[in-house]
Amino acid sequence: MSIETKSWNEDANGFGLNHLPYGAFRANGSTCLCVRIGDFVLDLAACAADDVCDSLPVELRKSLTQPTLNSLLALGPQSWHTLREWLTSVLEEAASDEVKTRIGLFIHPLDKVELALPISIGNYTDFYASLHHARRVGELFRPDNPLLPNYKHIPIGYHGRASSIVVSGTEIRRPWGQSRPPNESAPPNFGPSAALDYEVELAFIVGQGNVLGEPIPIAEAGQHLFGVALLNDWSARDIQSWEYQPLGPFLGKSFATSISPWITPLAALEPFRVPALPRPAGDPQPLPHLYNEVDQQNGALDIHVSAALNAAARDMPLAQTNSRDLYWTAAQMATHHTSNGCNLQPGDILASGTLSGPERGSAGCFMELTRNGAEPLQLLNGDRRTWLQDGDEITLTAFCERPGLQHIQLGRCTGRILPAHPAAPQSS
Amino acid sequence: MSIETKSWNEDANGFGLNHLPYGAFRANGSTCLCVRIGDFVLDLAACAADDVCDSLPVELRKSLTQPTLNSLLALGPQSWHTLREWLTSVLEEAASDEVKTRIGLFIHPLDKVELALPISIGNYTDFYASLHHARRVGELFRPDNPLLPNYKHIPIGYHGRASSIVVSGTEIRRPWGQSRPPNESAPPNFGPSAALDYEVELAFIVGQGNVLGEPIPIAEAGQHLFGVALLNDWSARDIQSWEYQPLGPFLGKSFATSISPWITPLAALEPFRVPALPRPAGDPQPLPHLYNEVDQQNGALDIHVSAALNAAARDMPLAQTNSRDLYWTAAQMATHHTSNGCNLQPGDILASGTLSGPERGSAGCFMELTRNGAEPLQLLNGDRRTWLQDGDEITLTAFCERPGLQHIQLGRCTGRILPAHPAAPQSS
Repeated sequence: MSIETKSWNEDANGFGLNHLPYGAFRANGSTCLCVRIGDFVLDLAACAADDVCDSLPVELRKSLTQPTLNSLLALGPQSWHTLREWLTSVLEEAASDEVKTRIGLFIHPLDKVELALPISIGNYTDFYASLHHARRVGELFRPDNPLLPNYKHIPIGYHGRASSIVVSGTEIRRPWGQSRPPNESAPPNFGPSAALDYEVELAFIVGQGNVLGEPIPIAEAGQHLFGVALLNDWSARDIQSWEYQPLGPFLGKSFATSISPWITPLAALEPFRVPALPRPAGDPQPLPHLYNEVDQQNGALDIHVSAALNAAARDMPLAQTNSRDLYWTAAQMATHHTSNGCNLQPGDILASGTLSGPERGSAGCFMELTRNGAEPLQLLNGDRRTWLQDGDEITLTAFCERPGLQHIQLGRCTGRILPAHPAAPQSS
Repeated sequence: MSIETKSWNEDANGFGLNHLPYGAFRANGSTCLCVRIGDFVLDLAACAADDVCDSLPVELRKSLTQPTLNSLLALGPQSWHTLREWLTSVLEEAASDEVKTRIGLFIHPLDKVELALPISIGNYTDFYASLHHARRVGELFRPDNPLLPNYKHIPIGYHGRASSIVVSGTEIRRPWGQSRPPNESAPPNFGPSAALDYEVELAFIVGQGNVLGEPIPIAEAGQHLFGVALLNDWSARDIQSWEYQPLGPFLGKSFATSISPWITPLAALEPFRVPALPRPAGDPQPLPHLYNEVDQQNGALDIHVSAALNAAARDMPLAQTNSRDLYWTAAQMATHHTSNGCNLQPGDILASGTLSGPERGSAGCFMELTRNGAEPLQLLNGDRRTWLQDGDEITLTAFCERPGLQHIQLGRCTGRILPAHPAAPQSS
């Protein structure tokens, strides 16, 4: 069977016609946007230059020739819908032979292309939206009072470092950093992090932004979000715990953040929308600007997310969790973020924070799984881990399924730990 | 006297040939780079298109045609030096009449152009480098233990919001936000901030960045910094104090940050370098990677910085401070920032944090001056202030002077407070 006459819904492996995630690949020194279908990519820049795209509006066609999705994101939901309809029409079984033959010219096997980051990320915000994560981390440091009084009123978040976000597969160098001195009169330690951790997160990609000074009402927040990706917020817990007061995490996080290469449009996830997590009895209602009935009814996503250590060697499944267990919805995060007038921009990332569920087996980081290193995990091969070792690889995967529907597989997010630089960064 | 034969060092008002700060102005719907000389701007894009620039290397010339300084910043210190030498040669008294006449074509009066942000800011980091500020703020909340144990070992900082950085003169809308409930069982308040503050800061603009995973040794940090600007880190203290634990400041800061339109090259400030602040007796030495003898000898800048409330009405000088009083140097901030491998990029901002000096009259924000609102300031016109009122304007100015040298005036940074939106952002 030739590419141009392939039926994409056979053997789609979670990347069928109902999915169509966006990415980018390197070709001849430049970067081209693409869409994934099965184990192939469709080169969108090549399509845009061909008259097979003639029916698309000029500005939409132009956005496909850019090295990142940002121009497409800025065009807004109507354009995203038009493009998705067009992609479906040229890839579906019912497309004409002429279209299939033409489109076939622009399709490449996935294993022949090098994937790149498909968005230019102006600002990366990391939330803390899992109550289970916040409570388990809080219990480690404040056993009597694990949750701070603000937690149930505002989606707590902080600004992350955008420059060090890398595409899945990029190797992660173990960071050097300062950590707490052994006693108050001793100098702090400076060396390679001895408490390197991962965090399983879902990243929401901002589509159209808002004007500085103009908040996004919660009823409109969904229209400003384009898609989702998996994100691993690598964390050096020893650096983080020494530095984080009073201004929050900084170098314990900023050495690297990995993101899957495929952005799944929220349009593909419509069938997997579920009600927001019911608030436990006694919890306060969100203030009115953070509460919307429609959002409560379908503002959460039923995405099964897993983390595994050295998956190729089948060493250890670490966690199985689900984004439906988040305490705050993406719309609440976006509305809170802009409630002071802060402007979101196309390509910005709003990450969920560690996606931990109610059971310990759904905890999304070593800090929770090993109780801050106190209880090592036993791996299937007999090894133990409290934190990541050099050479360890973390792989995040995720899927959505419903009876009668084709399942959707999000893009994988992997990263392997490289040893720290052997010598301390040069001093004077 | 015509422009082309003007002697720029007469009536330069701090913007003479020894200064030459970079900026950008809007013209015909696009943005052009420029350099300021006296009360005029030289259009660098127009120069680059003219053969008066023939002696400059191609890539340097090309960088001048961009809408931001980022390409120039990426070229590095040798290119910055070449450009500065060239600018001096065409603007100095000794330039040929032919050059003066040609250059005169590209010079416009400052009051005829609209200034714009001259850099694209990928990431904005805000430090906390004034010990005096950290101690006074700490005393308000932890009277027995104002300074946390990490303060004297690491330049504490956090990631700020880059998207909401605006050029001086942009009006600042009072943000809405949540603040602490009156008691634990009450819901939080949501309304316009009632504790709006300013923070006087110095911004260091990153020139060439570093590769992810490769720290910048302190001996090389200076080469990665291009210039400085004044920065006002507007802060809503009621929002900030409710949200900031455990992940640091977020919406209390992200509604707006103002920056002066002129980037003063560090090359212009060489004569105003001074030794780093001597550490008080008993303070720990910085760890070796943060300590460099040359940096200790001349890593601080003797810049007098002032803040004024409603300067036009002469209401109130608020503070007079000096950047030489910072506990950490810019090189220490850059080296710490990259010590974990985090990559800086051209155009990134490393801000000092509030520039407070040892005396109360050198405190760089209302929070210090009014002891968190408890002691209102008496204004010269009889009014009082604890926090900013609608219509208030904050103006930051700064200068350097030395006997026998022409003085340098940094670009002003101003912003006026607009009333909050009258109604709460729409809810469901």
